[in-house]
Amino acid sequence: MNRSNQGALHQSKAGSDFLQLSAEDAPEGGLSDWLAASLRTAISDGRLPIGSRLPATRVLAADLRVSRGVVTEAYQRLTEDGHIVGRGRAGTVVVAIPHTPKSGPPSKTQPRPERPKTVFDSPPGVEVFEAARAAPARIDLSPGVPDLASFPRTAWLRAERAVLSELSAVDFGYGDPRGAPAMRAAVATWLARNRGITVDPAEVIVVAGVAQTLDLLAQILQRDGVKELAVEDPGSLGTRQQFHNRDIATPPVTVDEDGIRVDELRATGAPAVLLTPAHHFPTGVVLGGERRRELMQWASEGGLIVEDDYDAEHRYDRPPVPAIRSMLVEQVCYTGSVSKLLAPALRVGWVLPPPKYREAFVAAKRFADLGNAVLPQLVLAHLMESGELERQLRFLRRRHRQRRDAMITAIREYLPEAKVHGAAAGLHLMITFDSSAFKSNDAKLAAEILARGVKVQPLSWHHQRPARPGLVLGYAANNQSDLAEGIATIAEALHHQ
Amino acid sequence: MNRSNQGALHQSKAGSDFLQLSAEDAPEGGLSDWLAASLRTAISDGRLPIGSRLPATRVLAADLRVSRGVVTEAYQRLTEDGHIVGRGRAGTVVVAIPHTPKSGPPSKTQPRPERPKTVFDSPPGVEVFEAARAAPARIDLSPGVPDLASFPRTAWLRAERAVLSELSAVDFGYGDPRGAPAMRAAVATWLARNRGITVDPAEVIVVAGVAQTLDLLAQILQRDGVKELAVEDPGSLGTRQQFHNRDIATPPVTVDEDGIRVDELRATGAPAVLLTPAHHFPTGVVLGGERRRELMQWASEGGLIVEDDYDAEHRYDRPPVPAIRSMLVEQVCYTGSVSKLLAPALRVGWVLPPPKYREAFVAAKRFADLGNAVLPQLVLAHLMESGELERQLRFLRRRHRQRRDAMITAIREYLPEAKVHGAAAGLHLMITFDSSAFKSNDAKLAAEILARGVKVQPLSWHHQRPARPGLVLGYAANNQSDLAEGIATIAEALHHQ
Repeated sequence: MNRSNQGALHQSKAGSDFLQLSAEDAPEGGLSDWLAASLRTAISDGRLPIGSRLPATRVLAADLRVSRGVVTEAYQRLTEDGHIVGRGRAGTVVVAIPHTPKSGPPSKTQPRPERPKTVFDSPPGVEVFEAARAAPARIDLSPGVPDLASFPRTAWLRAERAVLSELSAVDFGYGDPRGAPAMRAAVATWLARNRGITVDPAEVIVVAGVAQTLDLLAQILQRDGVKELAVEDPGSLGTRQQFHNRDIATPPVTVDEDGIRVDELRATGAPAVLLTPAHHFPTGVVLGGERRRELMQWASEGGLIVEDDYDAEHRYDRPPVPAIRSMLVEQVCYTGSVSKLLAPALRVGWVLPPPKYREAFVAAKRFADLGNAVLPQLVLAHLMESGELERQLRFLRRRHRQRRDAMITAIREYLPEAKVHGAAAGLHLMITFDSSAFKSNDAKLAAEILARGVKVQPLSWHHQRPARPGLVLGYAANNQSDLAEGIATIAEALHHQ
Repeated sequence: MNRSNQGALHQSKAGSDFLQLSAEDAPEGGLSDWLAASLRTAISDGRLPIGSRLPATRVLAADLRVSRGVVTEAYQRLTEDGHIVGRGRAGTVVVAIPHTPKSGPPSKTQPRPERPKTVFDSPPGVEVFEAARAAPARIDLSPGVPDLASFPRTAWLRAERAVLSELSAVDFGYGDPRGAPAMRAAVATWLARNRGITVDPAEVIVVAGVAQTLDLLAQILQRDGVKELAVEDPGSLGTRQQFHNRDIATPPVTVDEDGIRVDELRATGAPAVLLTPAHHFPTGVVLGGERRRELMQWASEGGLIVEDDYDAEHRYDRPPVPAIRSMLVEQVCYTGSVSKLLAPALRVGWVLPPPKYREAFVAAKRFADLGNAVLPQLVLAHLMESGELERQLRFLRRRHRQRRDAMITAIREYLPEAKVHGAAAGLHLMITFDSSAFKSNDAKLAAEILARGVKVQPLSWHHQRPARPGLVLGYAANNQSDLAEGIATIAEALHHQ
């Protein structure tokens, strides 16, 4: 610990990060032998897998403070043995594993077997969405994504180039846990223009998607002694799982054609409710004016409204619906993201916490990850400020509308007995069936459909209480012929139950 | 809710996302008046701040289903009033706020006043690092960052272009919460080459930096009933704060010239310990061979070692030290990141959990944020696999070593009474002073130094128990003349106490 000043400028000791080689370990006069053997062992025990590259001889020799000839000779031996091969500018690459007995390090675990086909077993567990994604399918009609093939790669790269050319060195350091100032300003402007929300950028917190908002909120509610958060029924399964993970119960409240039943909400006695008022998931219902007024009254008596504005920008046959947050600030925790605008893989969203929880949110975000990555935030801010994101939204809206229409046309043709819900907006629609026409349940049906190569979500995943069977169908990410084939496949599975 | 199929293909209703305008709200025959008034109100109440752009007249007219002349006329009026101005291809931009009384939406909160200058008041709170970063300074010698000006912008952009050109549409969707397969493979290869660790990529979890590892681990330990995690004393203040946030105590264990005192660790009775064995923070000590053996014995009796390998790749005058995880798998939770290799702003790291906590880690990461953003992971994987990251590390090492030497030279010249510790590796060094030569304490000294325009961390931040006063000084991100000036300023502050 008490290294004195005298020693600090001494010559470096010989040694390489690469495999932690140190020539001091070598027997006298046998440097090449020692190095060749060390490399063989490393290839053999997996530290140098096939395809990995060895350092340049010059570099490794300098690190080890040995002559370059020592390294060249060791590489030569492994080349002669057929374990490595020189590929000119691409360097020296491992191509085969020596037949030496393994020692020391534990053997690699076997690759996991394919998941058993239990995606649609009920009740769905916390891994259900990953299991569903991992299941192979010809056509994927899972809801929740925009047309991913339309991701504006060129515009993204152009914006990133602009950002990288302007960034100062200090921007690469640790940042504000609330997000990059440019991104918070861009989000405030976006929400003002598109969602009717007036908010100071200082009140915007950038998060890793709505999922992170919900987890941070669940932690805050838990510490605040909140044990129940009422949710819409039906309502997102994934969202419920997030609160259950923090031991917060989710009493279900009926959603009818005007949205959540506020009288039922009152009856639960829950101090908070999670809503998708602009476009209810999965039914697509819009919260009606009278319900909004009842809800504001409920909130004014102390209730907390969590407003998940997950896909409000996507609408086709109806006027835009302003966010509840645009009318009520104190009792609303508003959240949204770019997952449905650009891509879920970006993991960028925002939350406008209610004032009483603002500091708690900043603290929770700080402890969670010290704040979102800076580069993607600045790229997004650039896309928002340049109008590129609005252009993308307009483009997507035309494309999604065509796909929505194609899905409905196919449903009329192949599935005339299905009732379509919520097709006026969003990225998905819901179909329901009369229970009487149904042999089993919708999870079973989804499994049959998957067996025929098409992926859908059973409506029952999103119901807490028994309800009519149905399916939730995303149309945004599929071309029209796949949509038609997908619906035809659903009909086939339904009719062959 | 029960929208029938019949309605779904109807004509869209008129309405624009932009300010949620709907021409149905306009009085008959007064469309331009109505639109001009709506825009004025939006500019006035902050929904359209100065500098924001209005939609193109063609676009807004189409959205509202009014003639383009209506929009042109409304824009013309605001232009004549001086509130907006047409800028050719750059569009129509808001330039002034109308003098109309504000109504409805709450007024913007005032910008926060500058933080009071209490950065070095003790004890340091959870906001201390942000407060320190926000404090203006001419020269920043805070530890914890590499040379940020050397971030390989061109290589990053090149890798991103390659990644974007190869990515499939589905990669933009929701991904594996454990991380992108390419990144997990690249991390496994990196750890094998550079840290002596043999690990199957399936066991690597990508996280948002070491901070996220620690928070996820704290949650898991908390659920597992663990109430104490022993830590090195001195040891990172930020790390301790993360565990305190989850109500886990951090009993201090002495670090001497061979690293942590394992006998003291035993005496605490804590079931887990957090270590920085390859390069102790902040003293720079390496855990000695005998201590390693004692520690492995302790772990074999059930203790959990959390190995924070935060900057092990940076070393100058000593051979590389393999990670504890390379020798022990079952009882080690290993974590590292690219924060010290490339930039903290990237928020990308990795954890190799001990087998018993592997599933819990995946679940915790899933609930935290559904997994890291995909694009930056793939760019990093590209930089790792192409050898670009190793080249960057070699470049940084030369540069950091020169800076380290410059700092030590300056200390010898200006601060001969200071004792230098831990200069053989890392991105920072530590200096201590005889208490007798000290008027007050090191936090007071850091405040005096900051008042002279130089930012440093007082050693006492990282001590849980009283100890010799000192400073922790980062040298990696500053040029040699700033380093000399910074040290001279420290001497000035010290001698004028």
